Amino acid sequence: MGGKTLIMNKRALILFAHGARDPRWAEPFIRLQGIVQSQSPELTVALAFLELMSPRLPELVPELVEAGVDDVSVVPVFLGQGGHVMRDLPLIMAELKVAHPAVSFKIAGAVGEDPQVLNAMATYCLGAID
Amino acid sequence: MGGKTLIMNKRALILFAHGARDPRWAEPFIRLQGIVQSQSPELTVALAFLELMSPRLPELVPELVEAGVDDVSVVPVFLGQGGHVMRDLPLIMAELKVAHPAVSFKIAGAVGEDPQVLNAMATYCLGAID
Repeated sequence: MGGKTLIMNKRALILFAHGARDPRWAEPFIRLQGIVQSQSPELTVALAFLELMSPRLPELVPELVEAGVDDVSVVPVFLGQGGHVMRDLPLIMAELKVAHPAVSFKIAGAVGEDPQVLNAMATYCLGAID
Repeated sequence: MGGKTLIMNKRALILFAHGARDPRWAEPFIRLQGIVQSQSPELTVALAFLELMSPRLPELVPELVEAGVDDVSVVPVFLGQGGHVMRDLPLIMAELKVAHPAVSFKIAGAVGEDPQVLNAMATYCLGAID
């Protein structure tokens, strides 16, 4: 996310992930971002992290808003909904809403709650045993 | 996993997840276990955790072996492959192999590395914005 880039899309989809020390950890999230962006060129699809990796969510959103985004959807790319999704993310979003009152914000459920994601994981798990 | 249960299946598939303080975090993993078990009644499908939840992997495997399992496949139910998957899990598995030399152990790649899992997550992310 270059801060100087002019973004024509007014809607952004942020994939929000935990972050880790090992840069290899981010690879599937970067691939996911690429898949989603290619399927929706009319959206700005960005990655943001809770900790350990950049950009953090509170850093990314002001950049997007400055570039013209006025509608932000955040999808937690977490399997389980624990403290990070249920407590940390709502707190971050509440601060962002106060700081950007003209922007529409939406938080989706975690990807691990989706039945189709679970089914795809089940198929992978069963394939792993052969 | 009751330690006293007689397990007829000699093959086990262990879904290995991180663990968290919030019990709600485990819900999708329990659902995943149920889906995989229902699709493969000939396997013993179990959940094990790295930390914060029980059973831990080094606790579960001896129970399975005692119950007759001699073939263990472990699938890391992690999205990214960071230190937990690349370093912690291989160390645990190496100790289990030494402790149970007659058991066949296999480690799969993390579920987040699977293209079909990523595609399912992408579909979910795009649906979340509507």
